Amino acid sequence: MEQPGNTSKQNWKTYLHEVIFEADTAEGKAFDVVLLIAILLSVLAVMLESVSGIKAEYGDILYTIEWVFTVLFTLEYMARLIVVTKPWRYAVSFFGIVDLLSILPTFLSLFFAGAHSLLVIRSIRLLRVFRVFKLARFLGEASQLTAALRASRPKIIVFIGAVFAMTVVLGTAMYLIEGGENGFTSIPKSIYWAVVTLTTVGYGDIAPQTVLGQALATLIMILGYGIIAVPTGIVSAEMSKAKELHPVTTQACPHCGAEGHDSDASYCKKCGGRL
Amino acid sequence: MEQPGNTSKQNWKTYLHEVIFEADTAEGKAFDVVLLIAILLSVLAVMLESVSGIKAEYGDILYTIEWVFTVLFTLEYMARLIVVTKPWRYAVSFFGIVDLLSILPTFLSLFFAGAHSLLVIRSIRLLRVFRVFKLARFLGEASQLTAALRASRPKIIVFIGAVFAMTVVLGTAMYLIEGGENGFTSIPKSIYWAVVTLTTVGYGDIAPQTVLGQALATLIMILGYGIIAVPTGIVSAEMSKAKELHPVTTQACPHCGAEGHDSDASYCKKCGGRL
Amino acid sequence: MEQPGNTSKQNWKTYLHEVIFEADTAEGKAFDVVLLIAILLSVLAVMLESVSGIKAEYGDILYTIEWVFTVLFTLEYMARLIVVTKPWRYAVSFFGIVDLLSILPTFLSLFFAGAHSLLVIRSIRLLRVFRVFKLARFLGEASQLTAALRASRPKIIVFIGAVFAMTVVLGTAMYLIEGGENGFTSIPKSIYWAVVTLTTVGYGDIAPQTVLGQALATLIMILGYGIIAVPTGIVSAEMSKAKELHPVTTQACPHCGAEGHDSDASYCKKCGGRL
Amino acid sequence: MEQPGNTSKQNWKTYLHEVIFEADTAEGKAFDVVLLIAILLSVLAVMLESVSGIKAEYGDILYTIEWVFTVLFTLEYMARLIVVTKPWRYAVSFFGIVDLLSILPTFLSLFFAGAHSLLVIRSIRLLRVFRVFKLARFLGEASQLTAALRASRPKIIVFIGAVFAMTVVLGTAMYLIEGGENGFTSIPKSIYWAVVTLTTVGYGDIAPQTVLGQALATLIMILGYGIIAVPTGIVSAEMSKAKELHPVTTQACPHCGAEGHDSDASYCKKCGGRL
Repeated sequence: MEQPGNTSKQNWKTYLHEVIFEADTAEGKAFDVVLLIAILLSVLAVMLESVSGIKAEYGDILYTIEWVFTVLFTLEYMARLIVVTKPWRYAVSFFGIVDLLSILPTFLSLFFAGAHSLLVIRSIRLLRVFRVFKLARFLGEASQLTAALRASRPKIIVFIGAVFAMTVVLGTAMYLIEGGENGFTSIPKSIYWAVVTLTTVGYGDIAPQTVLGQALATLIMILGYGIIAVPTGIVSAEMSKAKELHPVTTQACPHCGAEGHDSDASYCKKCGGRL
Repeated sequence: MEQPGNTSKQNWKTYLHEVIFEADTAEGKAFDVVLLIAILLSVLAVMLESVSGIKAEYGDILYTIEWVFTVLFTLEYMARLIVVTKPWRYAVSFFGIVDLLSILPTFLSLFFAGAHSLLVIRSIRLLRVFRVFKLARFLGEASQLTAALRASRPKIIVFIGAVFAMTVVLGTAMYLIEGGENGFTSIPKSIYWAVVTLTTVGYGDIAPQTVLGQALATLIMILGYGIIAVPTGIVSAEMSKAKELHPVTTQACPHCGAEGHDSDASYCKKCGGRL
Repeated sequence: MEQPGNTSKQNWKTYLHEVIFEADTAEGKAFDVVLLIAILLSVLAVMLESVSGIKAEYGDILYTIEWVFTVLFTLEYMARLIVVTKPWRYAVSFFGIVDLLSILPTFLSLFFAGAHSLLVIRSIRLLRVFRVFKLARFLGEASQLTAALRASRPKIIVFIGAVFAMTVVLGTAMYLIEGGENGFTSIPKSIYWAVVTLTTVGYGDIAPQTVLGQALATLIMILGYGIIAVPTGIVSAEMSKAKELHPVTTQACPHCGAEGHDSDASYCKKCGGRL
Repeated sequence: MEQPGNTSKQNWKTYLHEVIFEADTAEGKAFDVVLLIAILLSVLAVMLESVSGIKAEYGDILYTIEWVFTVLFTLEYMARLIVVTKPWRYAVSFFGIVDLLSILPTFLSLFFAGAHSLLVIRSIRLLRVFRVFKLARFLGEASQLTAALRASRPKIIVFIGAVFAMTVVLGTAMYLIEGGENGFTSIPKSIYWAVVTLTTVGYGDIAPQTVLGQALATLIMILGYGIIAVPTGIVSAEMSKAKELHPVTTQACPHCGAEGHDSDASYCKKCGGRL
């Protein structure tokens, strides 16, 4: 790996790209850590502003912090667009859209009074945490997790479909058994209760009162207790399968810095350089 | 695969069968998608009718929608009976019965006032969603899931039996410890509480108040937390076993359209044609 | 297998043993099914007696039923003792003790007024359900489950010990943070709350009110969500291991009726007869 | 293994080390069992003191018990420091710090009135239970568990990070949908609710009241029900992997008493002696 000092001879774009997008050099690591802290502080400020007591006392400071971070993130977003060779491809990528969405609400609040309701989009900024995770070896693990989850997606969709159909049938049954006087005022509300029960959440805001209702609820709970095994079994099987077939090494390519190579790979799958 | 246009030369029954039961041709796919949307709208209408505010305002429209869908589904049910070569075998199959049950309640409501209580049978209509899933490759996944669940059924029954015996013993103990003044008014109600606790649902409508009761409840919760591992372990083991022995391919036979072939199969297990 | 009619030439003890303890002959099966129903009815009577409304109206009938079943079960217990060759060994076995305990409370209620509090022992009678399961092939499955659970017992004990230590530390912390005015009146009660939270039961009878308490509760919940994986992982690993090493066949020995043979066994492990 | 009687010829330090740190000799076992009971009684005394009724009546006795145990544990801590060859290394080890922290609060209570709030540190004493577990074969199991958990740590951290980001986004959404009048008074409180729901704890102290809120809550619950599979899958895969690669024997080295050897080991990995 070359010394960062050598980069002064190279194009400044390449150097900036290294700092902003990579985490292999000292500057790149520092940039990512600072960015992570800035995101956390920014989200914290949004959270604290929602607490009425704090807003009354420190509302002005929080408003200033929000604008400072928005300006900083806007500059960062522009730098990212300038630095990459294909700006449009970055702009429409998942993280590109998240980057845009996390600065827009503050600007929109100048024109629309309902800016407060757009704060929710801003909190997606936290997802950036995973990009910063690149500085650790967590990316390999995350990609393995994602692969196992993607492989088990069709089975999970079938399962969630079956669970949903079940809650519709059981919720309707409870609506007929318990009726409105016990809190089961409509079929949608009864389905809500069935989901609360089947997933073992159990708020207790609505609870069966009749003997027949409690008997059916008992059945639903044991059912829910039993079928929780299904997604776990699916993911377990996929995960142990994935581990056997594709053990990923945490080694980064010395030439291009690409990660997530198979443990039996001899050449980088991105640049073809010897590992 | 033959062009749908060629079917005009064939028997119209074969063509209709292709459209209604299969999802390989453009018409078949369109039919299934339309049917899926119709079922969803129909169930939605039944749900909305149960919300008192909506019923008061849009009751007449929802009543019309219910009848329109019932007539459509009745025509579809008749078409299915005419099209298949063995109508009786279809009529007594699981989906045949579901198809009949999802149109009956509306007709019965003409003769019986308690038609409202038969709405629950109608919501089973949603299970048809899985038939429509045939258009995706989900059928293979569903059959794999079902196979793993069927294989683990005896163990699950033993497990649920053990859990039920446990809740009877623990529920009775709590009835004796807490007594009626703390909500444990009878043994059945205490068993209901034990199931609520053991399955980690925890409504909180009944909760132990005495020190001894809370100590026993603590024991039950840790027990429930521990034994939730058992069904998961059963299904996990069966699922990874099933995957190793019978990896199912999503490839459909080009001759007969049958799905669910083993990945090492060279000939269709239904028609013997080369895959 | 010999015809039941031939048994008239054999010792009547052997015949009765076959009927009472085995489920291979028609008489043995019938006896077990009748016994199962009798146990269920008896437990149901005890349950119904606890419902105040039902006791007021049908108390006398339920009292008679209780005595009838007690007399029947006493006769059965005596028959078991007479029939086996080593009565003492049966009497001190698990099911022998359960058999005795399920008839004692009724007799004790003649001398002690607090007989009501002994009803809990009677409900253990339900565990007999598993003995009757012998008539199905569930015994093999149950023994497999038990083997997997026994193998994972040391790990589970370590895990439950760790969870208990964790709840003591976390419960004490919550007691100090929240204090008595928010329901955390003592350390034992706070530990009870910590178990309720960590096991994801969540009654809601006690819930944190302060910001710091809610933050710690959030941590406990995510912790509990994470560590629920541990017992599942243990049992899953043991279960898939057990299946690979010791696949149990459900075939019963034609000579002695012993069950639970390994699938590669050629001779009965109890009597040495050819399978 | 040498007779304890022979130790009189050896250095008394070596003998005391054997008694205090090992559990192979009769004296060592007795010491560990007595210590375990002392820790349990001491923690029990602290717990009981927090119950207002008990403190009023037995406060003086409990105060005396606290001081007696503190003096005993102080003597034990000093003995440990004297006996080991490298006292500083022990003092900064995990159990060394725990030993110190479990005696400090009582002494500190002489100078500071807020001693009551330091009781929480004392309850960490219970973690010593695991040291005493050395006398059983549980240590091997615990080390296996720890190894599997350590191996799955990076994946679990990624997972918990993802869950946390999810609760921030979903909590903020619920804050905007439900608003303060339904209990969602601030974003932090809404995040607390999202964690309570996603982890299926479900206290019910805050519950959605609007139709849109209940719909989103339904989504969160099904999501939580699905993703609970992820940590389980991770740990399951690691645990079955760990078992296959490193089966640990419970045999202790006859020369040095070291435990946790691999089952195919012929020589002790600590002293090189023949096993």
